[in-house]
Amino acid sequence: MYLELDGKGVLYRQLLRALKRAILDGRLAAGTQLPATRLLAETLGLSRNTVVAAYALLCAEHLAASHGGSGTFVAEGLAPRRRRAPPADIPAPSRYAARSRELPALNLPRRRGALRYDLQYGEPLVDLPLFAAWGRALARAAARTDGRYPPSQGLPALRAEIAAYLARRRGIACDAEDIVVVAGTQQAVALLGRLLLDEGDTAVLEDPHYQLIAHALAAEGARLRFVAVDAEGLDAAALPEERIRLACVTPSHQFPSAAVMSVPRRMALLQQAAQRRFWLLEDDYDGEFGFEGRLLPALRSLDLDDRVIYVGSFSKTLFPALRLGYVVCPRALRDDLVRAKRLADLGCGAIEQAAMAGFMASGAFERHLRKASLELRRRRRALADGVARHCGARLVLDDSGAGMHCVGWLPGLDPAEADALRALAESRGLGLYPIQPHYARPPQMPGLLLGFAGLSVAQLRQATRLLGDCLDQVRRVRRRA
Amino acid sequence: MYLELDGKGVLYRQLLRALKRAILDGRLAAGTQLPATRLLAETLGLSRNTVVAAYALLCAEHLAASHGGSGTFVAEGLAPRRRRAPPADIPAPSRYAARSRELPALNLPRRRGALRYDLQYGEPLVDLPLFAAWGRALARAAARTDGRYPPSQGLPALRAEIAAYLARRRGIACDAEDIVVVAGTQQAVALLGRLLLDEGDTAVLEDPHYQLIAHALAAEGARLRFVAVDAEGLDAAALPEERIRLACVTPSHQFPSAAVMSVPRRMALLQQAAQRRFWLLEDDYDGEFGFEGRLLPALRSLDLDDRVIYVGSFSKTLFPALRLGYVVCPRALRDDLVRAKRLADLGCGAIEQAAMAGFMASGAFERHLRKASLELRRRRRALADGVARHCGARLVLDDSGAGMHCVGWLPGLDPAEADALRALAESRGLGLYPIQPHYARPPQMPGLLLGFAGLSVAQLRQATRLLGDCLDQVRRVRRRA
Repeated sequence: MYLELDGKGVLYRQLLRALKRAILDGRLAAGTQLPATRLLAETLGLSRNTVVAAYALLCAEHLAASHGGSGTFVAEGLAPRRRRAPPADIPAPSRYAARSRELPALNLPRRRGALRYDLQYGEPLVDLPLFAAWGRALARAAARTDGRYPPSQGLPALRAEIAAYLARRRGIACDAEDIVVVAGTQQAVALLGRLLLDEGDTAVLEDPHYQLIAHALAAEGARLRFVAVDAEGLDAAALPEERIRLACVTPSHQFPSAAVMSVPRRMALLQQAAQRRFWLLEDDYDGEFGFEGRLLPALRSLDLDDRVIYVGSFSKTLFPALRLGYVVCPRALRDDLVRAKRLADLGCGAIEQAAMAGFMASGAFERHLRKASLELRRRRRALADGVARHCGARLVLDDSGAGMHCVGWLPGLDPAEADALRALAESRGLGLYPIQPHYARPPQMPGLLLGFAGLSVAQLRQATRLLGDCLDQVRRVRRRA
Repeated sequence: MYLELDGKGVLYRQLLRALKRAILDGRLAAGTQLPATRLLAETLGLSRNTVVAAYALLCAEHLAASHGGSGTFVAEGLAPRRRRAPPADIPAPSRYAARSRELPALNLPRRRGALRYDLQYGEPLVDLPLFAAWGRALARAAARTDGRYPPSQGLPALRAEIAAYLARRRGIACDAEDIVVVAGTQQAVALLGRLLLDEGDTAVLEDPHYQLIAHALAAEGARLRFVAVDAEGLDAAALPEERIRLACVTPSHQFPSAAVMSVPRRMALLQQAAQRRFWLLEDDYDGEFGFEGRLLPALRSLDLDDRVIYVGSFSKTLFPALRLGYVVCPRALRDDLVRAKRLADLGCGAIEQAAMAGFMASGAFERHLRKASLELRRRRRALADGVARHCGARLVLDDSGAGMHCVGWLPGLDPAEADALRALAESRGLGLYPIQPHYARPPQMPGLLLGFAGLSVAQLRQATRLLGDCLDQVRRVRRRA
């Protein structure tokens, strides 16, 4: 009998698996007597105890039976099957799967340990006391949990804290019942896309935009229409004339162009949504975080028609490893959204929710916001100063004074030169990221998405100096050519 | 000017919202001068500082402008809008929403604080040292996090621990790459349903079955076909002849009938899946937990064709508040599933995953399993002994010696009497739950789903005595009638 041990884990388990495979694929037929343990041990060079243990487990799993002193026999009633080559590639098993296979590759953060300075957007503001404080909040919440399934809409205590916070800081009048707790912005968009869109329905996205939101809606089968934003944000006059079901906007701080939508544009968009009866998804992904200067009212706070679905997240204000966010949901959709959340995953983890409620109630959350906002402003200024000093007019910073990233345009470089700049920078330990992948229609000139949250002020000084050097070098190559 | 304060929060915020509403719905037209602060304060009986603060915020939000000494004016360029009655009920916004609105009401756990003894299935085995240990694991993981977005497939360290655990305890040969971490069984089913089923495709479920899984697949538009289970579990010979895409089974411990699928039935099911090319979802929701007696091999461990999608969960082995589970995914579906998880919520929280990896690596998880399994066995026996003693033949216990619940059949009671029994029990502080809602086709006689994890041995003795009393009383009423 040929038995191949797979070399994984303890020997009797290896032998058990080998025997099982032989039984299942019919090499050891039902009713066959297995070799005597001593004999098999000799044949395979194993100890007899190993074989005895494997036989015992085979019997425990009802694949064999021991008939007293007469030996061990393969169980009866097992239909032997031929092993098929397991399919490694199969046609997409559903239209959803087919659409999601067609999505373009993501420009996701790569973990590049070798980089000294990584201007990756989406890196958290690393704050060790915050992580420790969050850990304590989790431990406290775990000690107090009753261990039960959380309510699908979210813990009442957390929903109340979020509603009070939004009223205080964003001028949004809402109650705990209007809040649905979700596992971050991505889940909010995925659930709402599922709820609001049939295949072929039109959804409007800003251009540029956050790729994974576009992907989630495209996977749902939505027909995506991109509307270009300018310095005042999305212009409702530029919306397509076809029937729109949903428009996703980032009015506080457009991602990634960093534009802030003006109040007249906000009013015009609300008016169109009410007239044409589409839903507005306000993605307030980094809200007022790190904001300098004028703070405009949230679209939701201007909405008299209950058409704005406000989506907030703790990924930016705390850190992305924490998958927790919330939706301020129009009354007409609330039951649908809670049901969709329940069907999707029953509800978010109760301990994390209780920890967040405690974190907000104690004031620790808003203390962190203030502290982190000040630090982000320092970092943003360090980036701006460094760019002004080392890059001059070769990199034009588009900074709205909010959030955790700026856009740097590269006038005079063609796309190939911009690629060369990024490759050169990477070879010198500086991570740069193009803005192009976030556009459906490529922008007029190449640009960079400059995330500054993950580097200290001192690191940002070094990073901008290095960026200036790389720009010089690319220019020199160009002049020579 | 009529301004209605909504009574929520501080006064200047209330006034700000009232002014905003007046501006937005056109009662205060663009360019209008606002009343002098002193005057408005008098009119409304507020302090002048309150009005000054509200005007300042109105200006900060660009809804008004202060022209030096000449007063405060409503901003220009705001299109006034009539307030519409917000829609409270709307037609379902998508086919998904329509289907999910049609789902039958759930028989979800109600929190009934007044009950002394609640035999609710799904209650955790409350274990204070476990909660404290889990809190410490979370705090440690938080202190070590880098705060970044987790990989969508799950933390490699956790996937490696799960793969080793499954090989060791369930005989499933898999690697860390075969594992996808999800937010519990419900999410696994929802993602796989989305991935494997188009509207109208056939999915097979056991009857009885767990309602929320049926709901998730029905919401996807699947055509559900229920196949009755007997004491040996689902019989592949009873599968419908139409084309099947997915069959969901609970072979280790059928939910809720508690049957264990026999090995010949497992083999026959695998054979059909391979021949007819459908996917098998093995929901091992409480696996070997609390198991007494014979432990049969997981379907996945017998699968030579890579057709079994094995779904495991920490909701039962630890507690339901923790939303964490995993899928052992066939190779052909792995990329699809990881993509679906990414689109659904980017990935599970990194701190919880790291905490779980640490919990498993330290041996704390399996120590808890052993301890909790012993305690569950004690509780199961207390339930069985109490039922034998106090209920006699009026309650027939169907116990496979596994998991956290048994089924108790009520021979000789009609459905109305069974309802009366539950109402009577509830009035006396005993929570009883019918098994009927878990059936697509009602069972032959009324039955109870008896969850025993949430009560101590002493409580179970009292609960079964009370149950016996209630049965007596219902019988007496019957005899009189």
